[in-house]
Amino acid sequence: MTESTPITHSDNEIPRPAGSDRQAAIEQDVVDRVVRSFDQCPDPRLQQVMVSLVEHLHDFLREVRPTEAEWARAIEFLTAAGHITDDRRQEFILLSDTLGVSMQTIAINNEIHRDATEATVFGPFFVENSPHIELGEDMSFGATGQPCWVEGTVTDTDGRALPGARIEVWEADDDGLYDVQYPDGRIAGRAHLFTDDDGAYRFWALTPTPYPIPHDGPVGAMLRAAGRSPYRASHLHFMVTVEGYRRLVTHIFVRGDELLDRDSVFGVKESLVKDFIEQPAGTAPDGRTIDRTWTQVRFDIVLAPAE
Amino acid sequence: MTESTPITHSDNEIPRPAGSDRQAAIEQDVVDRVVRSFDQCPDPRLQQVMVSLVEHLHDFLREVRPTEAEWARAIEFLTAAGHITDDRRQEFILLSDTLGVSMQTIAINNEIHRDATEATVFGPFFVENSPHIELGEDMSFGATGQPCWVEGTVTDTDGRALPGARIEVWEADDDGLYDVQYPDGRIAGRAHLFTDDDGAYRFWALTPTPYPIPHDGPVGAMLRAAGRSPYRASHLHFMVTVEGYRRLVTHIFVRGDELLDRDSVFGVKESLVKDFIEQPAGTAPDGRTIDRTWTQVRFDIVLAPAE
Ligand SMILES: [Fe+2]
Ligand SMILES: [Fe+2]
Repeated sequence: MTESTPITHSDNEIPRPAGSDRQAAIEQDVVDRVVRSFDQCPDPRLQQVMVSLVEHLHDFLREVRPTEAEWARAIEFLTAAGHITDDRRQEFILLSDTLGVSMQTIAINNEIHRDATEATVFGPFFVENSPHIELGEDMSFGATGQPCWVEGTVTDTDGRALPGARIEVWEADDDGLYDVQYPDGRIAGRAHLFTDDDGAYRFWALTPTPYPIPHDGPVGAMLRAAGRSPYRASHLHFMVTVEGYRRLVTHIFVRGDELLDRDSVFGVKESLVKDFIEQPAGTAPDGRTIDRTWTQVRFDIVLAPAE
Repeated sequence: MTESTPITHSDNEIPRPAGSDRQAAIEQDVVDRVVRSFDQCPDPRLQQVMVSLVEHLHDFLREVRPTEAEWARAIEFLTAAGHITDDRRQEFILLSDTLGVSMQTIAINNEIHRDATEATVFGPFFVENSPHIELGEDMSFGATGQPCWVEGTVTDTDGRALPGARIEVWEADDDGLYDVQYPDGRIAGRAHLFTDDDGAYRFWALTPTPYPIPHDGPVGAMLRAAGRSPYRASHLHFMVTVEGYRRLVTHIFVRGDELLDRDSVFGVKESLVKDFIEQPAGTAPDGRTIDRTWTQVRFDIVLAPAE
């Protein structure tokens, strides 16, 4: 579209296409008109968001200079995403996840606070009213996989123990599926427990394994076209709630997992990558005898104060 | 979210919230990871578009700093837009139109060329196979409104007449509706004609009147929340096609229309605003007797060469 013949230029000038100043003024005029259309917006926050959206969206358009066919493909993509979305499938959240928008929103809303544990994406598989387990009990409830002993503490940023912290944990089985992805109504691979008087916790879980996000829709097609994998790095979800502290939603990841660098939703943070130490069959930390290999991981959780 | 206590600052420094450099680094790291995920993209144009999209989208997020509730509202908006969209209703195009994205895409794909007539939005109401009319005939076919005599020429940018130029024209009736918006299958307010040997054309149409874009969906709700009108400035659509020239899709607008400044899709360009001169009942330019007031407008069209 840009004309290829410069008007004139000396050796010191970068050649510019003929008419580009007039063209730039026309494009800027479109932006200015759209921005002005929000002048009467009665909600100052909505105005701020819409004006910023318009400015960044038009910067993008003016940079990539989409053809009309490319614009039409973008409309088709959004339409297909809308049509595959229903009560159980949310393609716009997948789009947000795979463009890092979800993770950026988490980062913005959980600003770093001293050495408080970092947050990551919530994901679609949390379920209210998980089973309660006592310290040292098993949250797998029959979900298949390698046993994993998880232990740690919950403290504040001054190192004070937080007794009675509510810890929700959930994860996929070694087929890469959460309980809610099976049609049989099972409840497995999820539980909640509470820290003891020393702020300590411990439970049996499963060594996390990788799984793909749903990739049979337009977002999956985008990932394929871009040469990207739909797989998430192996992880175990945590949500930790204590009155007076910022609620922490996070995961722990497995050091050495080859997917750490290419998690499809950009959830990995170095501080959340933990050593899952493989152990031989024999006696476990809680005294039980275990007839296969298992792993053991420590995750000490630090909560930021509530805002 | 930002902590309010600066660490230290002298009188010469702008106070910065504690930890903001670390926070900025965390947010930038999310952007960098998403950008890098497109490193293996086999299609260089797709890579360019996705990387630019990611950078501008994250600039927007980091600027407005959406709450998680605002993020959820954005997901709901897109979901509602997807669900109202079907074969006859295209909410994502309405969204593109009302954010100026359509008009910017038109501007980018129809770069200014000398004094060639400017393009504007295509709109959803063009229909293939419109009736053919001879020069001086009427394109209203029973659509109601004030008669309007339209005449002009089609030339190239050197002023050479272009005989045989195909001109498609279409417009709403004075109830603000296009023929295709009626359920009765009528064909009215649309036609095509060809310029004569001097590149001239003339036909009867209707003085354009305003109409709203569909505003009973999420885009309409956005316009209301923003204090914006769904109305388009009054206009008559043209599409002009001549072999060897860039196809021109444009409108003419009515000078004095109070909606010129607040066209809901930002289609107005000053060069496309024309004088529709009101005339008394009596004899029209083609010699016919007309028993009500009518208007007359001149639109000389200049085509850019094909790329
Ligand atoms: Fe997960
Ligand atoms: Fe129109």
